[in-house]
Amino acid sequence: MTRLLVGNDFGEELRKRPGAGWWVQRLVWFAQDGDILVLPVRPEEDYLRYVTSMTGTRLSSLKVIIPPPGHLGAEMLTSDRLRDKEFLDELGEAVAGAAVDSVLALFPDAAIASLAEALGLENRMPGYAFVSQGGGAIVNSKAFFRAVAAGAGAPIPEGTVCPTPQAAEEAVLKLLAAGHVAILKHEFLSSGKGNEILSPYDGVRPIGARSATVVTDRAAVHAYLAERWDALSGDGRNQVVVERYFPDSAAAFAEFLITDEGIEFGGQGDMLSEPFAIAQIIPAPALTPDQAQRLVAAGRLLCEPLHAMGYRGRLSADGIVTPDGDVLFTEYNGRVTGSTHVYAVIGEQVVGADYARDRVLFEHLWPEGWTAPSFAAVVARISGAGLAYDPATRTGVVLASAFNRPDDALHCCVVAESLAAAQEIRLRLEPLFTGD
Amino acid sequence: MTRLLVGNDFGEELRKRPGAGWWVQRLVWFAQDGDILVLPVRPEEDYLRYVTSMTGTRLSSLKVIIPPPGHLGAEMLTSDRLRDKEFLDELGEAVAGAAVDSVLALFPDAAIASLAEALGLENRMPGYAFVSQGGGAIVNSKAFFRAVAAGAGAPIPEGTVCPTPQAAEEAVLKLLAAGHVAILKHEFLSSGKGNEILSPYDGVRPIGARSATVVTDRAAVHAYLAERWDALSGDGRNQVVVERYFPDSAAAFAEFLITDEGIEFGGQGDMLSEPFAIAQIIPAPALTPDQAQRLVAAGRLLCEPLHAMGYRGRLSADGIVTPDGDVLFTEYNGRVTGSTHVYAVIGEQVVGADYARDRVLFEHLWPEGWTAPSFAAVVARISGAGLAYDPATRTGVVLASAFNRPDDALHCCVVAESLAAAQEIRLRLEPLFTGD
Repeated sequence: MTRLLVGNDFGEELRKRPGAGWWVQRLVWFAQDGDILVLPVRPEEDYLRYVTSMTGTRLSSLKVIIPPPGHLGAEMLTSDRLRDKEFLDELGEAVAGAAVDSVLALFPDAAIASLAEALGLENRMPGYAFVSQGGGAIVNSKAFFRAVAAGAGAPIPEGTVCPTPQAAEEAVLKLLAAGHVAILKHEFLSSGKGNEILSPYDGVRPIGARSATVVTDRAAVHAYLAERWDALSGDGRNQVVVERYFPDSAAAFAEFLITDEGIEFGGQGDMLSEPFAIAQIIPAPALTPDQAQRLVAAGRLLCEPLHAMGYRGRLSADGIVTPDGDVLFTEYNGRVTGSTHVYAVIGEQVVGADYARDRVLFEHLWPEGWTAPSFAAVVARISGAGLAYDPATRTGVVLASAFNRPDDALHCCVVAESLAAAQEIRLRLEPLFTGD
Repeated sequence: MTRLLVGNDFGEELRKRPGAGWWVQRLVWFAQDGDILVLPVRPEEDYLRYVTSMTGTRLSSLKVIIPPPGHLGAEMLTSDRLRDKEFLDELGEAVAGAAVDSVLALFPDAAIASLAEALGLENRMPGYAFVSQGGGAIVNSKAFFRAVAAGAGAPIPEGTVCPTPQAAEEAVLKLLAAGHVAILKHEFLSSGKGNEILSPYDGVRPIGARSATVVTDRAAVHAYLAERWDALSGDGRNQVVVERYFPDSAAAFAEFLITDEGIEFGGQGDMLSEPFAIAQIIPAPALTPDQAQRLVAAGRLLCEPLHAMGYRGRLSADGIVTPDGDVLFTEYNGRVTGSTHVYAVIGEQVVGADYARDRVLFEHLWPEGWTAPSFAAVVARISGAGLAYDPATRTGVVLASAFNRPDDALHCCVVAESLAAAQEIRLRLEPLFTGD
């Protein structure tokens, strides 16, 4: 069982995120003995050693191959890099000696299908046919999400998919007229970074959105859209979603694995944003058992058309639980998300198959102000404080991402017996990284 | 059983066809006693009388309602027209008295869902949820078609969905390098009008395409795309399909009706183009029984994901039979097509349920040069020549569309016992309309 794992970020035509080289290194969590990894940048040795020591994968058995930089630099696996002749020769040699039996990428991009084809591995890539014809856009579009969810019978907030600013203006005004708050969404951005709130009243905090603006009449909405339409629509290339925003909702996800055989539940959790996504709690403590069950059942409904259209891979159904207790879906993400390695590897594999029954995974991005000189220093400080994950107690802190030193960005995953216990550990972490 | 039938043409954001007022009047073929019809322009009395005399519908039982002209004039049912207050009042009154049990539109546009909602009829519109969120674009996009067909296992020609001219350049060159001819397709145009052929050799006639151009190297392909990209991509809003073009193929369709219950076969036929679609022959004489069976079986495969995502209505799976006998799909059209009324009404209802067993329907657009002073004159001339459809013999000519006098555009449907007999009748029509 050798696999080719590809650490791409997003389809480069849909969205460019040039600084994502550290973030796609979460790919290493999925590595098993003998795997071949393609990444945009070479991970630090300390990071590779740390992750494989947690997963039990023999680091020496892995091949990590990095193509030369491309037209967008060194941090994105752009398609020109994946077509580089020397890179393909090196990768082809690794593949030839390994009997690769599957190709898995973080994002279902046509460039990955082309890579698989160039290596003669298209039959080893689940969903190859769908992805090779641009299907990745369908399973990651917030616009098509609404059509597919509505058609499949998964509940969604009132709203409209808007191809023009005129349509968006009508859609916003319709919500405002009913006394509702509106959220405008870019079709392909994530973590709430493409979302903007328009509210008829003051005091709405932007959670899962870039901003919240009070608008009270058509003229204000019109002016807002005149100003923001190009950014929201990717300069007119994309549609814009307008939907009802529910202040004070809990945000949650249910993630599935779609295979030839069917739809398999992966994990579920809460998502915390302030204003952008910064933490997740797996399984979701904010949901009642009934709400969690509804989230998973309707999330599965959402997977069925994607299974029928030939998508294979992870699908996160993201939703909210409104103050009234309704479960409504707000987007889907057909890719390996920022949750996948947390529940599927750190949870199931490191903590154990029962993780969701007797443990809580509290995974968070470092807050503003936390800093450290290196990944190794972070490991040392956490160990020194007695906070490192301990397989004996099945509690403690796991470093869930590579360290983005320039921005002091790092994901920590606290494993504890309860949310309260996790929050306590989280508090004990703070002085380790705010004292420099 | 009163129904609301809406004669819209296409989603106005996807494609504007301002001269389609005559063409959408094929809606009248579907009218049954008591139905309410919304059309962009009022059909001629002669046309209404003719069609209802063929279908046996009581013309006096129909209500035909026309909203005032909109921002694109009088020939398109743009959404502003469908929101007009006086129109909605008039329509609402008609609906209130009628117990409407279904809403059917020619094209699954969100504006029709809004109309249904404004009338309180959203539960009476099959596929309402999917259409209300812009699903019509998914089931009419030649780009998403390729992803969905590939993923569902319906055979398609080698090719690529291209978001950029660079991607299209690579895709074209790949085909040319293999000695193939390439066709470039606009995502939303129809009848071959958005298609352009690039060939590595001379002598390819554009069938189902606007043009055929010889290109022999990268520079020529690059220059061609620099010139044509904006037109092909709708000024960058859409993707462009590049795929292998098979000269000397037969073109055929298999159309289905997707309902809550499942997928029902509708009809199949050949499509003739020179260079744009000008005729259809139902059922397809160019296909062997085995090819026809494969067309229908794989067409049904294509319907399954659309059923799962909540689309309800007609789906035409369009394909080709290559000179080697392969059946390959080239696009789908999730709407009431130019074939639907021909097989479902003129065929099944007028000619009879057995039409496909013992009759051929040869439906063609008037060739250049044919003319007549009016629809009534056409009817009279055909009757005078003894060529009018005769229920006793189940043969003769049916006028399948309204008459577009300025362009002399009209669809004739010749019903005969064989293709040869149909062609004979077709030849006898010619002098009736070329002698003026």
